[in-house]
Amino acid sequence: MKILHHRVAQFGFDKPRKAGDNGRQMLKTDYIDAAQGRTPADLNLTDCRVVDFFRGRVIDGATVSIYKGYIVGVNDSLAAKATKSLGGMYLCPGLVDAHVHIESSLLSPVEYARMVAPLGTTAIVADPHEIANVLGHDGINWMLRASDGLPLDVYMMVPSCVPATNFDTAGASLYASDLARFARDERVLGLGEVMNYPGVLAGDPRVLDKLSLFWEAGKAIDGHAPGLCGRDLSAYVLTGIRSDHEATTAEEALEKLGKGMWIMARMGSSARDLEHLIPAMDNESIRRMMLCTDDRHPDDIASEGHIDAAVRALVSGGVPFMDALRMACHNPATYYGLRRSGSIGPGYRADLVAFTDPADFRAALVFKAGDLIAEAGSTNARYDRLGSAVVVPPLRDSVNIKWLEEKDFRIPDEGGQARIIEASAGSIITGSSLARPKVEDGLCVSDVARDIIRIFVIERHTGSGNIGKGFIRGLGLKHGAMGATVSHDSHNMIIAGIDDASIFKAARRLNAMKGGFVITDGEAVHAELALPVAGLMSDRPATEVMEKLAAFEEFFRKEGMPGASPLMTLSFMALPVIPSLKITDKGLVDVDSFEQVSLFKVP
Amino acid sequence: MKILHHRVAQFGFDKPRKAGDNGRQMLKTDYIDAAQGRTPADLNLTDCRVVDFFRGRVIDGATVSIYKGYIVGVNDSLAAKATKSLGGMYLCPGLVDAHVHIESSLLSPVEYARMVAPLGTTAIVADPHEIANVLGHDGINWMLRASDGLPLDVYMMVPSCVPATNFDTAGASLYASDLARFARDERVLGLGEVMNYPGVLAGDPRVLDKLSLFWEAGKAIDGHAPGLCGRDLSAYVLTGIRSDHEATTAEEALEKLGKGMWIMARMGSSARDLEHLIPAMDNESIRRMMLCTDDRHPDDIASEGHIDAAVRALVSGGVPFMDALRMACHNPATYYGLRRSGSIGPGYRADLVAFTDPADFRAALVFKAGDLIAEAGSTNARYDRLGSAVVVPPLRDSVNIKWLEEKDFRIPDEGGQARIIEASAGSIITGSSLARPKVEDGLCVSDVARDIIRIFVIERHTGSGNIGKGFIRGLGLKHGAMGATVSHDSHNMIIAGIDDASIFKAARRLNAMKGGFVITDGEAVHAELALPVAGLMSDRPATEVMEKLAAFEEFFRKEGMPGASPLMTLSFMALPVIPSLKITDKGLVDVDSFEQVSLFKVP
Repeated sequence: MKILHHRVAQFGFDKPRKAGDNGRQMLKTDYIDAAQGRTPADLNLTDCRVVDFFRGRVIDGATVSIYKGYIVGVNDSLAAKATKSLGGMYLCPGLVDAHVHIESSLLSPVEYARMVAPLGTTAIVADPHEIANVLGHDGINWMLRASDGLPLDVYMMVPSCVPATNFDTAGASLYASDLARFARDERVLGLGEVMNYPGVLAGDPRVLDKLSLFWEAGKAIDGHAPGLCGRDLSAYVLTGIRSDHEATTAEEALEKLGKGMWIMARMGSSARDLEHLIPAMDNESIRRMMLCTDDRHPDDIASEGHIDAAVRALVSGGVPFMDALRMACHNPATYYGLRRSGSIGPGYRADLVAFTDPADFRAALVFKAGDLIAEAGSTNARYDRLGSAVVVPPLRDSVNIKWLEEKDFRIPDEGGQARIIEASAGSIITGSSLARPKVEDGLCVSDVARDIIRIFVIERHTGSGNIGKGFIRGLGLKHGAMGATVSHDSHNMIIAGIDDASIFKAARRLNAMKGGFVITDGEAVHAELALPVAGLMSDRPATEVMEKLAAFEEFFRKEGMPGASPLMTLSFMALPVIPSLKITDKGLVDVDSFEQVSLFKVP
Repeated sequence: MKILHHRVAQFGFDKPRKAGDNGRQMLKTDYIDAAQGRTPADLNLTDCRVVDFFRGRVIDGATVSIYKGYIVGVNDSLAAKATKSLGGMYLCPGLVDAHVHIESSLLSPVEYARMVAPLGTTAIVADPHEIANVLGHDGINWMLRASDGLPLDVYMMVPSCVPATNFDTAGASLYASDLARFARDERVLGLGEVMNYPGVLAGDPRVLDKLSLFWEAGKAIDGHAPGLCGRDLSAYVLTGIRSDHEATTAEEALEKLGKGMWIMARMGSSARDLEHLIPAMDNESIRRMMLCTDDRHPDDIASEGHIDAAVRALVSGGVPFMDALRMACHNPATYYGLRRSGSIGPGYRADLVAFTDPADFRAALVFKAGDLIAEAGSTNARYDRLGSAVVVPPLRDSVNIKWLEEKDFRIPDEGGQARIIEASAGSIITGSSLARPKVEDGLCVSDVARDIIRIFVIERHTGSGNIGKGFIRGLGLKHGAMGATVSHDSHNMIIAGIDDASIFKAARRLNAMKGGFVITDGEAVHAELALPVAGLMSDRPATEVMEKLAAFEEFFRKEGMPGASPLMTLSFMALPVIPSLKITDKGLVDVDSFEQVSLFKVP
């Protein structure tokens, strides 16, 4: 009803007591006091050009008042203990990566944060799909704990598809009942990319149970539906899956938008779709689009940038900077229900980025909860103090292989033709061919002349002793062996190599390092990167990781191996949802016919 | 991560079992089947002009497929058991009243629904503030139960300010602990208009507790902050109050929008602000504005309309019809988190309105959950079948007064001047004056010549026997007495009258009717309307209520009483938060000095 209260003091309530600090953030009287000027703010940022998404405008010459990490007023003439003039710089909310797998950076959350925070990213929505495939519930838990309290908000989407398939041995199987506890976690924003759209479309109750769990919790459910359209897309969307980051064309994005999905434009290391989506970015769609990196390697972050690079790419592609920034910060906060992020206004977190040139967005100053944590692209002492407060929790070793001997890598000749995985550089899709392997003393050996070399997948989660054996052409390896425990999606140990000694050494070295990448030649190690965190992530600083990765690149370059990253190619050879021939710890999978096949083709 | 699934059948899952119907709506395989065309839809609406807010467009010649109450596809070429051509009519989502007090209609929820549903309103967000002031927790509960299952979605916002003041005796006091159970109710969308902004600004913990309860539940908190601006507005907003329906000027609306509030443009019976807000409706703001009626009388709904009338008013004021409709249905669904309402797309409820002329929006067909329930402004047999399924739950009598006698209404002369409430027709603000009352035999009597008549507030909740006594000028009553149990906000019995017999009769009649409105003259009753539901609402059909109200109007007109509704004026004379002089069951309140005062001014 309409009631006009003419005076503040005229209510019949007793004089209020002060509420204690009960952790409800804004619902503490000191914030209310600060907003009304009864106590001074901590910091006034003056002479800002405030980017205001509520009204789609820039407020020139504005003063933003910050108290205990939150904005308490804009142009409210509040006194503050400290003042910092931005000298006419723009000020926008911190950037948000709407969908990212931290594991793809090979970095721990702490190091990941250190790389992206100075670039203006103040929040990420991480899907710990990889570590969950290795360590299940414990892996998600670790990710939550290892990222808690960082000067970067790390939110989680719980992986929806662990394991991705039943063709191999993963480290875990997660059902809705396993995910239930996460649905109640404040930092968990929902269910991660539902890759298993065949399961959704077929009404698989195990998939629907997970959707239901998060739908009932009122949380987001992210999609992953490359190329899905028409009726199938409608069926997928109606279950409550309301976002997608797999659109690669404007048409695909527009169909998905029209069916009610939010679209995440991706700027990953290999998958870089966002420029292709620019034609879809009109005045309507930019209110339901976001930016994400999905999978981005540390060197790309270092050289090109993070979400800031996506903003630059959009602006240089003709997208108005207000729209690009709206997608970069305001929209993900809206989509994910981050009620105190993504805007500059009273009650919003003082996660702020100052920048000079809208045409070339670069974070000059980054504030996290009111703290200046980075300047000109580098973290500062304040960041170090905040970042070092995070103690990385212990995690059990995840490389659990049965005792190996050199002879375990022998492939006895069965006669006739063998199935060969035909890899092509830079693609995760493989072909399949038949060839007579080179045989010595009744054993199949690698044949460098024809580039047909042996490949093995060693189960590493349960110590089962499973070793899948096969041949691969296209890697271009000429000496020794290369191996990895990053091997999508089950992340078993995968090794391709020429001679038994090198292969055996690679396996032992990966085991000793508790996971990682390695290149061996006999007993010699040409390059190695230990990834002891679940066999997926380093526990070392980003600079060290990038140095070690450079040694691999140097090796590949020197050897003249094809493609930008043979390691990346290798790490997708065990993913039996991608055609055509793949290898798992249980042997070869013909993905086209969707069945396990023998190495030697029975005539 | 980026994975391309090339074929639907290529996942390593077992063939899915069918999930049972476990009430999760869209997460039932039959919806998924229907969307993919494996089972036929129930109804195809063909040749529609679909209003699509996702992309801000109208889709001409579209087919909308509906299955078990939900949309399963748009233009997906699905077969259906039945087809209905809309012959090129527009089709938009059902309208939503973003803030309404059902009690103001004097109708029960069942009758309210019957009035507004054929006008295209398919959902309302009701704040049962009035019944809560009378019956507290039980009143809110009754409202929830009496509106459950109607062919109108009735959502609730829990009243935040019961009682409004401590100057009088209300039927209940609701603290956060009383509201906790409602915070978990699916139909409760949040905390109702926080009128007690002085309490917020002073940090009153009893107010903050309520905010905290609903903030933590992830629900909306509606504001009510007429004229609040600057620092005070910032302080109010930062607590999490993110909407306001009290803006009366474009400037006020724009300041509130700029601070992050959603604005509800109101078209009530007396407060009609929406036209004044048109200048604030630009391409940005229309995405954060909604429409509401707040308080609307049944005759205004019958003669002018409901939210449909607001849409017409906006369009005729120059607002594009897409924008007006966006505010009328899409935005409230977004603001309140109604995840399956407010849009036409897969997985959205088939609450739909067909109309012909965007320049003169009138609901030609109304579909509720896929059922055609109204045509050309009238409900049909299908509506009757659905609507009659709702059983109105019993409610205890709420008129509990102590035994009254005629002499209880005597006002002994204390000598000197008395305080007079100066009412003016159509305003809830009163003045205050001093006059020597007319005295007969030592008792003060009403003085028709000077229009100074006696007024009484009889406490009706606890049977305390409290009777506040005073004088009022400006009602213009010349004979008998008029009385009401609708008397904001505590809804005690209020009676103004000339002679003891008429006043006593009015009190007895209101008691006998269990509340309502009455006009008496001696033992005769000139007009009466029983409101036995909490003394606020009728249990009779809307037509009967309107007929009875017409008798009051006829009386007022014949008597030449000023203003459109002297009953309305009377019903605000006991609201001691509105200046200047008011009367409660405890006596007079000087609202300007914020204190109780005696009837006779001590010299």
